Amino acid sequence: MPHPALPAALLCGALITALPAPAEPAPVTATAAAPRQVILLVGDGMDEQQLTIARNYLHGARGQLLVDSLPLRAAVQVLTVTDSEDGAPVYVADSANTATSLATGAVTSIGRIGTAPGSGADLTNIVELAAAAGLRTGIVTTASVTDATPAAFATHINFRLCENPGSMVDVNYKGIPLGDCAAHLQSRGGRGSIAEQLAAAPLDVLLGGGRKHFSAAVEGGGQSVLALSRARGYTVVEDTGALAAVPPGQRLLGLFAAGTLPVRLQGEGGRGAEDPRPSLLNRVHPYLGDVTLPEPVHCEPNPEFDGVPGLAQMTDAALARLAADNDRGFFLMVESASIDKQSHERKPCGAIGEVQQLEEALASALAFAGSHPQTLVLVTSDHAHAAQLVPDSSLYAAYPIPIYTPGKLARVRSPEGAVLAVNYATSNFMQEEHTGAAVPLYSNAEGVGRVPAFLQQPAVFDIVRAYLGL
Amino acid sequence: MPHPALPAALLCGALITALPAPAEPAPVTATAAAPRQVILLVGDGMDEQQLTIARNYLHGARGQLLVDSLPLRAAVQVLTVTDSEDGAPVYVADSANTATSLATGAVTSIGRIGTAPGSGADLTNIVELAAAAGLRTGIVTTASVTDATPAAFATHINFRLCENPGSMVDVNYKGIPLGDCAAHLQSRGGRGSIAEQLAAAPLDVLLGGGRKHFSAAVEGGGQSVLALSRARGYTVVEDTGALAAVPPGQRLLGLFAAGTLPVRLQGEGGRGAEDPRPSLLNRVHPYLGDVTLPEPVHCEPNPEFDGVPGLAQMTDAALARLAADNDRGFFLMVESASIDKQSHERKPCGAIGEVQQLEEALASALAFAGSHPQTLVLVTSDHAHAAQLVPDSSLYAAYPIPIYTPGKLARVRSPEGAVLAVNYATSNFMQEEHTGAAVPLYSNAEGVGRVPAFLQQPAVFDIVRAYLGL
Repeated sequence: MPHPALPAALLCGALITALPAPAEPAPVTATAAAPRQVILLVGDGMDEQQLTIARNYLHGARGQLLVDSLPLRAAVQVLTVTDSEDGAPVYVADSANTATSLATGAVTSIGRIGTAPGSGADLTNIVELAAAAGLRTGIVTTASVTDATPAAFATHINFRLCENPGSMVDVNYKGIPLGDCAAHLQSRGGRGSIAEQLAAAPLDVLLGGGRKHFSAAVEGGGQSVLALSRARGYTVVEDTGALAAVPPGQRLLGLFAAGTLPVRLQGEGGRGAEDPRPSLLNRVHPYLGDVTLPEPVHCEPNPEFDGVPGLAQMTDAALARLAADNDRGFFLMVESASIDKQSHERKPCGAIGEVQQLEEALASALAFAGSHPQTLVLVTSDHAHAAQLVPDSSLYAAYPIPIYTPGKLARVRSPEGAVLAVNYATSNFMQEEHTGAAVPLYSNAEGVGRVPAFLQQPAVFDIVRAYLGL
Repeated sequence: MPHPALPAALLCGALITALPAPAEPAPVTATAAAPRQVILLVGDGMDEQQLTIARNYLHGARGQLLVDSLPLRAAVQVLTVTDSEDGAPVYVADSANTATSLATGAVTSIGRIGTAPGSGADLTNIVELAAAAGLRTGIVTTASVTDATPAAFATHINFRLCENPGSMVDVNYKGIPLGDCAAHLQSRGGRGSIAEQLAAAPLDVLLGGGRKHFSAAVEGGGQSVLALSRARGYTVVEDTGALAAVPPGQRLLGLFAAGTLPVRLQGEGGRGAEDPRPSLLNRVHPYLGDVTLPEPVHCEPNPEFDGVPGLAQMTDAALARLAADNDRGFFLMVESASIDKQSHERKPCGAIGEVQQLEEALASALAFAGSHPQTLVLVTSDHAHAAQLVPDSSLYAAYPIPIYTPGKLARVRSPEGAVLAVNYATSNFMQEEHTGAAVPLYSNAEGVGRVPAFLQQPAVFDIVRAYLGL
């Protein structure tokens, strides 16, 4: 008999820890009595360039990331279409349509969250399927919980920027109209903004940033989205200390910043990529004069990160709540969001720190899987990004002319004493673009035999759904 | 009893065809009587961006490449060091040092062919090991056979551009000194130029371009490198018809172009990536005016490719010669070289055609493996490259300002009716740079259990060597 003070699930976990990890996928029937769970970690914008930059910086050129130790590495073709029911292919995605593929198994158009291209029909997501089957569900992110990736796992709307009730009719940036979600207003029979939908979603744990979207009044007024969330059963926490203090058994909403959580690392003094400065003579003729490249930069801790819960800390809290006294299993999505956001802003140190956060969350996931054998751990990305690791000394340096990138360059000093030259050159705009390369997908041993070496992004949903028996 | 007119090895192959492919790696001892062979296909510069561009163009966004059907896909960290015995890390490679890693298992510095950093000591390559053990060896490339990748599999020199006896003392481009290999002159006790070393290398088959490097007189004069090659036992062919006509049993040198073989595809009228053209007003302020992007381009057959043997045709010829009446096995390296060269020149159509050539050579390799079960087929790349698939319509298109790449852009019409926007923006020079991302490695079922999901590039050599029992 288990000791009455110990929940059976915990005791079971402790016993299973002593068993070796399975080398082959366990048949569904073999241990059907034990719960099954999926932990899906998403590095937003984490392509092979980002991974290599982080590997070199964090572990040295001859080192390896934790994700490199996983037994399976696949390539995932990202799919996007134009916004019509028989949409034409679009070769570069955004986080809204890619997260929709991961969460629902469908292909949709840029900017859409859990809705079909053209028709706008709702697409059922894995959180809804899991909750309906009695599994627990959780979302953890370093972005606002209303941002595209977390939103696609629990909500349905036509435009990702409709994050709160005040951003439904006229979404604009300094007066420039960007879109609207008028058709999704509750007054028109819709589900309302992303924040309002999250308050109503069947989530057990929702942790990240985005407090400002919950302080807005719900459509029609009367109370804030935060008050609505409490009314729907969420316990709300807003600082790291409170996160640890909430007892299990309650639904948990953690909002640890007004918007995106601060990142861990930054270039010294906030420096990112900068313009090479060609001399006047070089502006007269490209073979003349010289060029001044940006000075090398050290990565340093971002002081704003102090007191912010790390992604691993949020993941641990989510796992503890999702697993406690649970014989049905769960689905948890964990996003390191600012690999993407820092790359848009041409900040390689920031992106490196966010890959490191994903690594730490992966360590938490693998430790959990070590004591809960029917745990499928997947690590993937949603789309590729702009940053490229380029030579710090040109391949053509022997030619006596100034050679430099036409974009912006950061020369990051690595701890092993060399320079990582990171190039951002997809756009003259204040933000870099995404790119279209296939993205990585890694799995622990549970995925061997379930995840092929090449797949299309919607198939990730199919694998998760099949594993959970949904 | 085998029919006396049929070589035993061929009959054995025919019988084995009827057996299912092994799902697990066959133990070395299980069929030790059958020969073992490795076919290593290298897509030069073929990173995830190049693969995705080619996948979308050749098969559509929802299609897949032949390489995607292989059961194993790993990531390979590329390693490069500065040119000293305890060299510091360099984060972006060239084809000379990466091919040296693949061919010898060592890490060296940029520009070096089969020699150690600093000391310049010879590094034993897989062709030498295989030949010494009685295996046959072959190299097939769409580059000059003296180019860095093929050279590293059979020669040893300090600088890749010392391709013929006339390029040993003063290698220059229009008077700009690029380097020299004076220490490797035969008169100083060295092995001489790459072409001279190839004439003496233990190769059974060597096919590609580079005729001009063999018409040069050997060091000291008296005869051409081609005559030297014949004297060393090579039968020389210079056109596709002759390639098929040479009976097996003779060493074969095929030189099908003066330098690099012409590529299969080109942009219409030879167009590559072009500069976006901002208006005068936009040059005054980046938020004003407008920009004219390059017109979309169709890929078309390159007329210069007519009559040139395809990579698959050369691969088939090599495989037939290497396998005929051979009970010891072989090592064959097949390179699609101009994925890299066309990317340096900002020509996406050319690069796409060369991925297609690699695919066709892979089909040949897999067909061969289908009838010769102890055949390890590996497909990899040496280093990543500049090209990026970017949005044809910016993610920020709602902002009423001109948005465009600071580099050069090609907008390639895909057969499925969309536009692949390919960006080249690593350099203001006439050639793009390589990039530093880890590269893919694919394997047929023979590699399952032998190739981990993550490895460093020199480990590819270790896998090949172990498989061949060398």
